[in-house]
Amino acid sequence: MQLSPALAALIEALRALPGVGPKSAQRMAFHLLQEARPAAQVLAGALQRALERVGRCHQCRMFSEAERCEICANAQRDASLLCVVESPADVMALEQSGGYRGRYFVLMGHLSPLDGIGPEQLGGAEFEAVLAAGQVREVILATNSTVEGEATAHFLSQLVRQHGIRASRIAHGVPVGGELEYIDAGTLAHAMAGRQSL
Amino acid sequence: MQLSPALAALIEALRALPGVGPKSAQRMAFHLLQEARPAAQVLAGALQRALERVGRCHQCRMFSEAERCEICANAQRDASLLCVVESPADVMALEQSGGYRGRYFVLMGHLSPLDGIGPEQLGGAEFEAVLAAGQVREVILATNSTVEGEATAHFLSQLVRQHGIRASRIAHGVPVGGELEYIDAGTLAHAMAGRQSL
Repeated sequence: MQLSPALAALIEALRALPGVGPKSAQRMAFHLLQEARPAAQVLAGALQRALERVGRCHQCRMFSEAERCEICANAQRDASLLCVVESPADVMALEQSGGYRGRYFVLMGHLSPLDGIGPEQLGGAEFEAVLAAGQVREVILATNSTVEGEATAHFLSQLVRQHGIRASRIAHGVPVGGELEYIDAGTLAHAMAGRQSL
Repeated sequence: MQLSPALAALIEALRALPGVGPKSAQRMAFHLLQEARPAAQVLAGALQRALERVGRCHQCRMFSEAERCEICANAQRDASLLCVVESPADVMALEQSGGYRGRYFVLMGHLSPLDGIGPEQLGGAEFEAVLAAGQVREVILATNSTVEGEATAHFLSQLVRQHGIRASRIAHGVPVGGELEYIDAGTLAHAMAGRQSL
């Protein structure tokens, strides 16, 4: 038996969601049409509206409906600190941690020459513009602790130093609440090398 | 920091999907807007179209864009066999098993008096109409093997017998490839009670 074309198209389209395979997509489609039609209508509208309205901040590349995002437009945030992250989710995580009052720059990815992702694709021009504006005193490189994230941080640190600005990297070590016994060797090595005097 | 309203609305709307909590919804929304805008556009369109076009078969209540679904409209299918299932996903699973050539009736749920779901909400009128049409010789009750599914099967079996039609229940027992050691006691009891002579 073939599903009706509109239903088959919906299941196929749902697979664009991260972590959704054919079975989950079918389950989602059936659920939306069977029990959650009003919510499905809301979702269709919300998706359409988000696609139309949500662009990127011209300064930091974070998702924004205005030309400048809430953080870049906020004069209370410390313009001398710039934290570079890979994705908008990283901004959300850092904001929830609550301790940071500077601004952000969102790369929307990491360097990946094999995939054709170089500095240009990561907003290199906007990044240089922010550095050239002269307000930034320190750039905190908070890219992920992966091979690509480290390479991106290394590349950006050189760029930052060329502007005579201080570059720093977030600390790697034992997570708070973590038990040494279960921490991997690479993290432990970082934790030892990055020890601080008390 | 507050997310832009359109983005916050999208994240909230994505939570209508089964098994999607706040973190997954945020991840999905960011993914759609960051890396998959064309796919997101397709999804918005597919969802809208499915909501407009996909209704239910007037005969068996399966999802369908026409008044009668592909199976009910197919003269090759055995009209004397009617398999009653709880959801469209069950129809898909049985169709994929490949062995069944009869028709279906989709309850779209199970009896649940406390939630106000009685025979009427499960398409009782359509079900009676199919039985009264006189083509069906056997009704196979394939509701889930849960308390609610069993209660629903019991209720329907009485209804079916009132029409002078044979009612049967799908077999419960050890899954093919299953090892006895790991099968729960209830299933084993069913498997023993339902043993067949060789």
